[in-house]
Order: sequence, then structure tokens, then C-alpha cells
Amino acid sequence: MHGSPIRVGLLGCGTVGGALVELLQAQGDAIASRTGIRFEVTRIAVRDASRDRGLGLPAEVFTTDAAGVATDPDVDVVIEVIGGVDPARDLVLDAIKAGKPVVTANKELLAQVGADIFAAAEAAGVDVLFEAAVAGGIPLVRPLRESLLGEPVDQVLGIVNGTTNYILTRMSEGGESYADALADAQALGFAEADPTADVEGYDAGAKIAILASIAFGAKVVADDVYHEGISGLTADDIAFAASRGMVVKLLAIAERIEGDPPSIGVRVHPVMLPGTHPLAAVRESFNAVFVRGSAVGELMFYGRGAGGNPTASAVLGDLIDAALNLRKGAHASIGVLGPARLGSLVLW
Amino acid sequence: MHGSPIRVGLLGCGTVGGALVELLQAQGDAIASRTGIRFEVTRIAVRDASRDRGLGLPAEVFTTDAAGVATDPDVDVVIEVIGGVDPARDLVLDAIKAGKPVVTANKELLAQVGADIFAAAEAAGVDVLFEAAVAGGIPLVRPLRESLLGEPVDQVLGIVNGTTNYILTRMSEGGESYADALADAQALGFAEADPTADVEGYDAGAKIAILASIAFGAKVVADDVYHEGISGLTADDIAFAASRGMVVKLLAIAERIEGDPPSIGVRVHPVMLPGTHPLAAVRESFNAVFVRGSAVGELMFYGRGAGGNPTASAVLGDLIDAALNLRKGAHASIGVLGPARLGSLVLW
Repeated sequence: MHGSPIRVGLLGCGTVGGALVELLQAQGDAIASRTGIRFEVTRIAVRDASRDRGLGLPAEVFTTDAAGVATDPDVDVVIEVIGGVDPARDLVLDAIKAGKPVVTANKELLAQVGADIFAAAEAAGVDVLFEAAVAGGIPLVRPLRESLLGEPVDQVLGIVNGTTNYILTRMSEGGESYADALADAQALGFAEADPTADVEGYDAGAKIAILASIAFGAKVVADDVYHEGISGLTADDIAFAASRGMVVKLLAIAERIEGDPPSIGVRVHPVMLPGTHPLAAVRESFNAVFVRGSAVGELMFYGRGAGGNPTASAVLGDLIDAALNLRKGAHASIGVLGPARLGSLVLW
Repeated sequence: MHGSPIRVGLLGCGTVGGALVELLQAQGDAIASRTGIRFEVTRIAVRDASRDRGLGLPAEVFTTDAAGVATDPDVDVVIEVIGGVDPARDLVLDAIKAGKPVVTANKELLAQVGADIFAAAEAAGVDVLFEAAVAGGIPLVRPLRESLLGEPVDQVLGIVNGTTNYILTRMSEGGESYADALADAQALGFAEADPTADVEGYDAGAKIAILASIAFGAKVVADDVYHEGISGLTADDIAFAASRGMVVKLLAIAERIEGDPPSIGVRVHPVMLPGTHPLAAVRESFNAVFVRGSAVGELMFYGRGAGGNPTASAVLGDLIDAALNLRKGAHASIGVLGPARLGSLVLW
């Protein structure tokens, strides 16, 4: 039943990579008993191969030769947790060309060149799985790809940036100014020293580009997304919203716009939501994505959008899937993305 | 690429069955272009085959011979939406023995004899998929079965009965008495003339038995579940909770209880939740299930737990999955459920 172990090549060993190795060590027996599959992390590409990462792995597992890991004949599945477009793009494409399934947590990569990567995977007949690239540990990509395959999705609305949601929660519940709430978030490690990518909506924009691509089967890239961040919001804005029973959230939105031909609208901006809306109850650094399907109606998926363990959990779910597909000789296709017709901005 | 159509045999044609036929008619072309699969509903077993159901299908599709549909060599996938244990059990087991994948929306069946059905499916190597049996259209069974396969689930907490959640919402937001809120729910068609199964927690108990079985891989049946309903709650109870910033919800709970050996606790009862808990924001007849995993942390899945279209959406997602698996010669295994060690009741 068990066969030989699935050999995993890991590109990058930061917070997510390290958490994944530990999760595989802790859960290896349980996973084997549930699925019949054992994983062995045989190669890890890192910048400094001499550093001890405390993972209890033999030193020879670590290498600085990322390209070698991506195409190593002794690696069955490649996991990419380097982040950024270069050199991740070439590594992922090389692994695909070498016939290896790839699991990636890289939102920049998919928001910029996802269509090329999906097309290469389709041509090679291998899996590219990326649950961890959007909304961390929340199972969201899989339901959109599989559960809702039978009906059109009309709208995807998400709180997909934990930093800004934390800041808005402090402003709303603690009456803090934007500057104080940002300083809090920085002190707690939720915000970078340069918070631009989060607070101006670039991070959320990359994520909604990926979600729009899957939901509508069309090529939407980060640059297509209109964005307006939260840095201009004042305590008065939040208080005004509260006086009307409303809560301010930074939403990433992708929607089908009726018309002839129909188009897709993608944007990130602050929205006043009624306090009774399920997204209004998403507090602190949590993420949630609200989906409106034509038959299923309203769905929401909520959880931790970042962090080593939640993200590693999503990578592990995909890794098991890729391994099961390898065993079956099957693969999970996302198809080839068509061109997107982008609609003009419609604010509600 | 397209091959011959997948022939669907439908057992039952009530609200869900009718909605499914309409969804397949409306989305058939889109599904074929995304998956390469066409579906054809070739047989429908009903009690009265002469009634015109307005579905535009030839009269000869309808039959009263359910056993014949379940084993018909010209049916590739069987969908069971009859409900109840008998005759659904024999029909489903016969279909499995005949080597046919089964999609079912039947919670009573799975909460009572799910372990037998999963074991039969495992022995025959066919899919039994049941996303629609718990929490209607919400993709929940799939994430529990697939996304979280790599880590232990510690707890599943759900609002899985829309009728009682509607009644509690009316009591909480409208200050109504239990009797008035129940009468409202009955007038709107959310509650049956005899509301016992909903208000005393039997319906929620069946659903949490199924969720506990999947989450913990152990055989938990409806009779194992402790339950206490909402019929004893007064407007004063709700007002008292509100005065402390709390909301009363009827929760179905399954959790791992540490110990030597560890056990599983399963129960349904009203709980006072802090107003900031994500489940507190689940209003009206919506459902939501909160899952705590060891690595992923807290997740919540929210949506419509009942209704023809949402439930048919879940059935359709499973049908597409079963058809894709048939084409690949693969199948989705839930494994064989072990015996459950049930823990003593621990109330928080």
C-alpha cells in the first residue's frame, strides 16, 4: 500500500518552509496512515546552506543550487516558498518542464505571470497548486476551483490583508488614530517598517488578481487592479461610519459586470459595511473572503491569512493532493486562462 | 476530449432534485467547456411518474422503479436525494455494489449508517460524495476531507440548523418570545408544523455526527450526540446574554478530548458566545461551521445551509468531481471509519 516515499524538494526555508518541515515531521505518521503516503524532504535550496536551522535534517539536504533542486531527478514534488517573481518564475517553469508538480505560496509570482505558469502546467500535464498564495491557511482556492465549478461566480469580496484589518480594528474599537494604530501594528510585527505594500492596497491587489483569475477563468494581473489604501482614513471617518451602524473595511473586490460583452471589475478600496454584514465581524489580523455564486448564494471563508503555521498548513494540503494525484497518474487542471475584458470602475 | 456524456440516475425529484436538473440544463455548456464533461439525466425515480414536473424532460425518463435506476447499466453516476434511511440505504448500497459512484444529500442516512456506506464504497473502489448532506451549499466536507488531511482537527463548532438560528435571531434582534419567533419561522416556511426535529436539536445532532466522523475518522452516529434544544429559552435569557455583550446560539460541537486514551465529545446545546466571535455574526437562517486545526488555527465556513439551489450547487460540485474521477479511473476515499471512544460531557 505504501510504496516508496514522495521526495520533496523545497525552494526556500524561511518561516513557511521551516514550519512545513516541522509539520511534516510531526504529522508524518498520521498522514501515512490516512493516505498511504510518506514524504521525505530530500533537498532544500537556501541562500546560506551552512546555517543551522534547527530542523534536525542532515547538512547535505541543504544547497544553494535552487535550479538544481527544481530539476533534480530525485525530487518528485517541488515546493516554492521563496516569494517574488525572480528567480521563482524560472525555477517553477523549469520544474514544470521537468514534469514535476509544483506547490507554491507565491502571490507576486501568480499575480504577475500566473497565466504563463498555468499554461505551462497544462502543456506538461502536471499540477500547480497554490492554496497558500491567497489568504494563507484558508481553504479558498480549492472550493473556487472544485466546489463551484458548476455555476458562475458573480462576485468575490475579501478582507485579504491582515495588517490593514488589524489597523482598522484598532481605529474602530480603540478609537486610535491611523498613525497610532500603524505604530501598534509595526510594534507587534504585523506591519513592515515600510508599510506601503499593505496600507496602499498593493498586497490585496495581487491577491484579488489571483482570485479573479480563478473565479472568472480569465487573465487578471496585479497591474489591472484599481487600488486605494487606508492611509488617508482618519479617526473621524471611522467614527462617522460607526454613528451609522457601519464598519470600515479594506475590501478587495472582483465582480462580473453585465453588459455586451460582459466584463470583470477588480479593485481594492475602503468600504463602509453594515455592522450586520458577516465581513464586518472579521477582526484583528483575520482574513475572510465572501463569494456570491448564482446557485449557492452567499458563502464566506474565514481564517488566518498569514503566519508560518497556517500558510504551511495550506502548502501541506496541496502537497498531499499533488502526491495523491501523482500516485493516481491524474492531475488537477486549472485550464488555460483566457484574456480578461476589464470593466470600468463601478463604486457602490 | 469530450467523450460520451456521463449518464446520471436521480433517486428523488423534490426541491433539490428539481433544482439540480435545472442547474444542469442552465450550466451544461459552461461545465462542458470547463471540464470536458457533459451530463445527461437519463433516469429519475419518483413516487408518481405521471406528474409533470415542468423540467422539459421526456416522460420516459421518469420511473417508479428506484431499485432499477440504482443498478441500471446505462447509469454512470447515481444521485440520491430521497432522504431518510429506508429505502435510501439499500438503494445506495446496491448502486455501490454495481460499481457506481454515489452523490447523496441525505444526512439521516449518513448519520445512522454512514460507516457501512463508506466501508462498502471503499471495498468497491467507488466514490461516495456528500457535500450537500451537511450545511447545504457550504463547501465544508471537501476542505475537511482534503485541505486539512495533513493536520489534526481539534474542534468543530457549528450553527448547522437554519430554523433555530432564525428563531434566535428574531428573539435577539426583535425582542420576540420563543413562541412568536417560532410562529414567524413557521409562517415563512423555515419551520415545520411539528418543529421538534429542529428546535430540540435532532437535526443539528445528525449533522454534527457526520462532521465528527469525517474530522476524527471515527464512527459517530446521531444517537451518540447529547442534545438540548432552544424551546426552553425565554426572552429574558436572551436579554441577559445581551446585557453582557453575549449572543445565544444553538451550537453543534465535536471535539477531541485529551486523555489516555483520548476521546471525542459530541453535543448540541445553546451557548452564550461573545458578541465579537465570528459565529455571533451569523444571522437569520444562515449556517456556519468553525473549525480549529492544530496548524491552521481557526477557520470558519459560512453560507446557506438549506434550500433547493444552494443544496443543488453542492450536489453538482460533487457530481462533477465524481465524473472527473470516473474519467481518470481514480476515486476519492474517505477510508474506513474506526470505532469512536466517546468522552463524557464537558460543558464550558
